[in-house]
Amino acid sequence: MEQPKPRPVTIRDVAALAGVSAGTASKALNNQGQLRQETRDRVLAAAKGLKFRPNETARSLGSERTFTVGLLTTDSIGRFSIPVLLGAEDALAAGTILVFLCDTREDPIRERHYVETLLSRRVDGFIVTGRRSDPRTPLAVDVPVPVVYALTPSSDPADCSVVADDEQAGRLAGEHLIATGRSAIAHITGPASFDAVGNRERGLRTALSSSGLSLVGPGVLYGEWSEAWGRRAAQILLRSGAQFDGVYCGSDQIARGAAEVLAASGRAVPDDVALVGTDNWDILVEGRTPTLTTIDLNLHEVGRRAAQRLLAAIDGEPTQGLETCPSRLVMRESTELQRVRD
Amino acid sequence: MEQPKPRPVTIRDVAALAGVSAGTASKALNNQGQLRQETRDRVLAAAKGLKFRPNETARSLGSERTFTVGLLTTDSIGRFSIPVLLGAEDALAAGTILVFLCDTREDPIRERHYVETLLSRRVDGFIVTGRRSDPRTPLAVDVPVPVVYALTPSSDPADCSVVADDEQAGRLAGEHLIATGRSAIAHITGPASFDAVGNRERGLRTALSSSGLSLVGPGVLYGEWSEAWGRRAAQILLRSGAQFDGVYCGSDQIARGAAEVLAASGRAVPDDVALVGTDNWDILVEGRTPTLTTIDLNLHEVGRRAAQRLLAAIDGEPTQGLETCPSRLVMRESTELQRVRD
Repeated sequence: MEQPKPRPVTIRDVAALAGVSAGTASKALNNQGQLRQETRDRVLAAAKGLKFRPNETARSLGSERTFTVGLLTTDSIGRFSIPVLLGAEDALAAGTILVFLCDTREDPIRERHYVETLLSRRVDGFIVTGRRSDPRTPLAVDVPVPVVYALTPSSDPADCSVVADDEQAGRLAGEHLIATGRSAIAHITGPASFDAVGNRERGLRTALSSSGLSLVGPGVLYGEWSEAWGRRAAQILLRSGAQFDGVYCGSDQIARGAAEVLAASGRAVPDDVALVGTDNWDILVEGRTPTLTTIDLNLHEVGRRAAQRLLAAIDGEPTQGLETCPSRLVMRESTELQRVRD
Repeated sequence: MEQPKPRPVTIRDVAALAGVSAGTASKALNNQGQLRQETRDRVLAAAKGLKFRPNETARSLGSERTFTVGLLTTDSIGRFSIPVLLGAEDALAAGTILVFLCDTREDPIRERHYVETLLSRRVDGFIVTGRRSDPRTPLAVDVPVPVVYALTPSSDPADCSVVADDEQAGRLAGEHLIATGRSAIAHITGPASFDAVGNRERGLRTALSSSGLSLVGPGVLYGEWSEAWGRRAAQILLRSGAQFDGVYCGSDQIARGAAEVLAASGRAVPDDVALVGTDNWDILVEGRTPTLTTIDLNLHEVGRRAAQRLLAAIDGEPTQGLETCPSRLVMRESTELQRVRD
């Protein structure tokens, strides 16, 4: 690395080696103009010898597309935007589109700066993602290319957004607890201010009322997205004296905390109490015995679908409105069927 | 979004609105040529009215640099490459450089494809990162721009690599356990095949021998990077009959598993046994009581330094060889000083 930095090979280098003008070299490489076959061959051989790469930057000037997309995240590439990003990158790479990654850190000025910089680079479109499912205001800049919001929807219903199905997540959890023989189900979850919390609760209540059941315990236990809250909430539930044989937790962290307190108080999971988490976060659901049944929100698929909608819009077939992407139950040990007691 | 897709405004649109030729419009916008002030003003007003953005793609053709960098990760943007990516993006964005994110998924063909695609886009350089600290073979393609390896070093010592300091991590853990009054220290860690495992063990042994101590227990407990292994290893350690008052764990996951078993067997942390983890993974170290003292490998700083070295190399000041980035101890409750017994 101590040598001077090699500069990229240009068409002028190729022309010089082939003993022709740059214009002739360009015609030969682009298979245009009237050249003798011998001249054309000499240029191609020179290009190969010099490992010349045609400049895609220059080439794309001729077309309308640059085959680049801006991926804006407010989440510092965090726990929730990662699978979305991966899903999007997957779908875009399959379409041979490169991704500019921009972490806006929830700073509107930074976001605006990135959007304008990317527009000056002529990106073909944007995917905007975040850490929450609460709607966000649309991009502040007037954007002349398609935009798709993933995970965090736009508050403008005319925009195109792809999100997780939190209500279905709650319904799946409730239906599964009932299917494994539980009838007294409590709910420990995150802050009531999150849209996801309300939607999961609604789905859970729908599943219960379909079977003639309602939630038990001292109401829904709203709190924090943490193990500490899971422990505290389980203690509250135990001390309330409520009879319960199933708990749906709004996150795997909450479920881990609840599992620890239930075990310490002699309530066996799954025999006495079945537990369902949310997120399918591998290190949490696999880390403890019994392993944790959970709802996977399919965030990778959210990202993939968002990218597919963006590609369609770039190809002139835009869609608008909200698409929800189904979640799925991942069954593990914490909801195995109750053993028959002696 | 049902309207036809708006196309980007071009210089020809500006020229048409101003009633001049495209060449004149270009001269006016670039402040070149001899134009009447009135003409120049008319073009600028037209550009503003149409929200014309000068095409950076075209502009960069004139210079050697495109102000773009390729960030290749083999880690599917996982736990370890995220902080490295963030640190790199931080340093690069400060230099107003945009990042192409490419997830190679440890597939050499995919990696080669990305490198060639990015070279055809004339990126100014590459940062290559991964999930492990074991060296990797250099990029297979002959790359005419600077490359810096971050976290996962290149096996070629002439390349520029920035890595975490695993040996210092082990030394810090050992010194801290000794400083908090422990003298019988055991070590539970990951697979012996990982360079990081050997380096952390070496650092720990250095710290112990400086105080005339050596490791206790049935040898170093090599296993998996999981809570399950932490539980199993703690059981092995307890059953071995070895006397121990401190354990250094090669990861926070292992430490979480060990903490669970120690508590269940009546060994109080930190009063009977002090515990130190590695990684400073927030959800793990803060999730349990007592919270976990750990070694932070400063991966964000690894990424930031790698980006700084890349920027220097792009500016004509390349460096070569391996730079290790210091780790730091993050003290929490699991190593608090032993209480004086009655």
